[in-house]
Amino acid sequence: MISVSGAYQTKFGELWDRSLEDLILEAGQGAISDARINKTKIDLVLVANMLSGRLDSQDHLGALAVQILDLDQTPALRVEAACASGGVALHQAVTAIKAGNAKTVLVIGVEKMTDKSNSQIAQALMGAASSQERQAGLTFVGLYALMARVYFEKYKASKNDLAYVAIKNHRHASRNPKAQYPFPVELETVLKSSCVASPLHLFDCSPISDGAAAVVVTSRPQLKRDVAITASQLATDSVSLSERQSLTELKATKIAGQKAYAQAGISPDNIDIAEVHDCFSIAEIMAVEDLGFCQKGEGFKKIKHGEFDHDGRLPVNLSGGLKACGHPVGATGVKQIVELVTQLRHEAVGRQIKTGKIGLAHNVGGSGATAAVHILRKL
Amino acid sequence: MISVSGAYQTKFGELWDRSLEDLILEAGQGAISDARINKTKIDLVLVANMLSGRLDSQDHLGALAVQILDLDQTPALRVEAACASGGVALHQAVTAIKAGNAKTVLVIGVEKMTDKSNSQIAQALMGAASSQERQAGLTFVGLYALMARVYFEKYKASKNDLAYVAIKNHRHASRNPKAQYPFPVELETVLKSSCVASPLHLFDCSPISDGAAAVVVTSRPQLKRDVAITASQLATDSVSLSERQSLTELKATKIAGQKAYAQAGISPDNIDIAEVHDCFSIAEIMAVEDLGFCQKGEGFKKIKHGEFDHDGRLPVNLSGGLKACGHPVGATGVKQIVELVTQLRHEAVGRQIKTGKIGLAHNVGGSGATAAVHILRKL
Repeated sequence: MISVSGAYQTKFGELWDRSLEDLILEAGQGAISDARINKTKIDLVLVANMLSGRLDSQDHLGALAVQILDLDQTPALRVEAACASGGVALHQAVTAIKAGNAKTVLVIGVEKMTDKSNSQIAQALMGAASSQERQAGLTFVGLYALMARVYFEKYKASKNDLAYVAIKNHRHASRNPKAQYPFPVELETVLKSSCVASPLHLFDCSPISDGAAAVVVTSRPQLKRDVAITASQLATDSVSLSERQSLTELKATKIAGQKAYAQAGISPDNIDIAEVHDCFSIAEIMAVEDLGFCQKGEGFKKIKHGEFDHDGRLPVNLSGGLKACGHPVGATGVKQIVELVTQLRHEAVGRQIKTGKIGLAHNVGGSGATAAVHILRKL
Repeated sequence: MISVSGAYQTKFGELWDRSLEDLILEAGQGAISDARINKTKIDLVLVANMLSGRLDSQDHLGALAVQILDLDQTPALRVEAACASGGVALHQAVTAIKAGNAKTVLVIGVEKMTDKSNSQIAQALMGAASSQERQAGLTFVGLYALMARVYFEKYKASKNDLAYVAIKNHRHASRNPKAQYPFPVELETVLKSSCVASPLHLFDCSPISDGAAAVVVTSRPQLKRDVAITASQLATDSVSLSERQSLTELKATKIAGQKAYAQAGISPDNIDIAEVHDCFSIAEIMAVEDLGFCQKGEGFKKIKHGEFDHDGRLPVNLSGGLKACGHPVGATGVKQIVELVTQLRHEAVGRQIKTGKIGLAHNVGGSGATAAVHILRKL
């Protein structure tokens, strides 16, 4: 049995007084402290990060984290799969434990983005896409806007429908003090926000963020607070949108999800709470469909009708999601696990779900080329 | 039993007519072809790379490699630990197979560096060091020059002694058509080359290179050509030189080496051939000592006296090493494995060792913060 025994998230936001090193230190110490272990028990460190080489001139984050946290000769490395780096790093932690290489692994996701200009960040994020897409002048919001247009055409959805993703996730974030935008928004605010890449407006987009999150993953005997990892799966799709068969679904999400349900021996109906990758509003709509939480083409209706609200059938993105909790790229996939663990332990003060034992985390890289799906269960 | 069943290296050098994608394609196809398997057998792709985000605006290389090689939904990710990325990726491949997550893994190491200016590259490589070292204006050759000065003081070595590392590795490279500098050099050439960071001269330094290398690692039943991986170990030391207890050894190398010997159940005396991380001449001298091939303080004498020559007691860096075969950062650790496999299979035309079944590969990140040691055995 492999479980999460410690979980910690820093505040997400524009943290101009915090360095990359500060964030690694706070998150790493926070998770170790939450796991109530001596740090000498850590026998592998995995750091999830996409952009620090380009934005901060700092690579080699595995060894750097070991130095910052004073973990002696503990093996360490960095894992990168664009915005899915966090989920992929967790998968590597589970793999190392299954292999018998480690008993207790510290996974830290971190990104420091807001010190740079928006154009620098927009360019840097396109490192997750293909060179053809960069040469065509596409931005990330442009890629998802293309998907939204095809989705609108096929399923008769509208900008108005997209807005309810932002409204829900901001409402959730308003109860999460770690969120970058802990306030609710009105329909009119969303619809009147500036258009970034039609049909996506500013409030359809997750923000540029600083932040870190960390978890301790272990095969040690279960403690009462531990949350088991019952499935950990990755899948890949073409990096370029032009190579995809469909633009209204993410095939990597579907495959990673199906493999995860099979591994955990459950179906989508068994999921009590989920954190999904809502980098753009259209992404959450596709995610709830591709993960089997509702029929294809029904996601936007279910979101609008409150099925994925805090008090709905299946609460989705109680953290506020990427949209309102923030999206420090490498940290996002780890933060999803922190939120699920906090909820499943019944420690989510002010936003706690009433019941539920099974959570799902869904983390996407690029415009869908990488998907990581994890299923957690409180014993 | 986990073994290497396919191995391939592209030409290393200033490959101005080859893109990052071209190199990934050639190396990936080369290794799959050499393994004599259908590519549908690959169930995990690991890409080792340090700098493509910063130099080529391209991250997300795991998924990109899957697209380039047309490997469908195969899980994929990038691994980074500075110049040790290749060795660390191989360790992750072994881990995934031990965990039962994969039976056959494709590991591709790749770097494209020579299209950029030397100052851009020098800055980018300092991403492997600490921010304090960058702020102090240190370069990588500067860091190793500091180690060389302490070594000279302690063991009474000189620039003249360093030169024999370059002479040996260039002589080896002259027999390797894949090497960046396949020609021998004279003592005078080395000593008269320009000083980069005293006491290190131009010929004490590995070059800036483009290139890729790939291996197929598998748990499938052994074929006659396969080479078993009998040990795979990582260790970490502080990123900053100022935090180290000693500057005349790399503690991470010593620990990873000791763990590898224990795992393989052998001693340094059993090694028949080695590829060690000679990013600078002083690094090879420390490596042969730290790996136990000779006593501390004796490395430079043994190199000068030919013990690590092609026809010496223990041939070291028959590929030409980083110095003369070239050092496309992410590819280096994988190329070391390609060289060992080629030699242990007796397929190293023109530079084949006469006898020998056990090889060791030693890959270092930064100024010694990460070390990966692998031991291979021909059955």
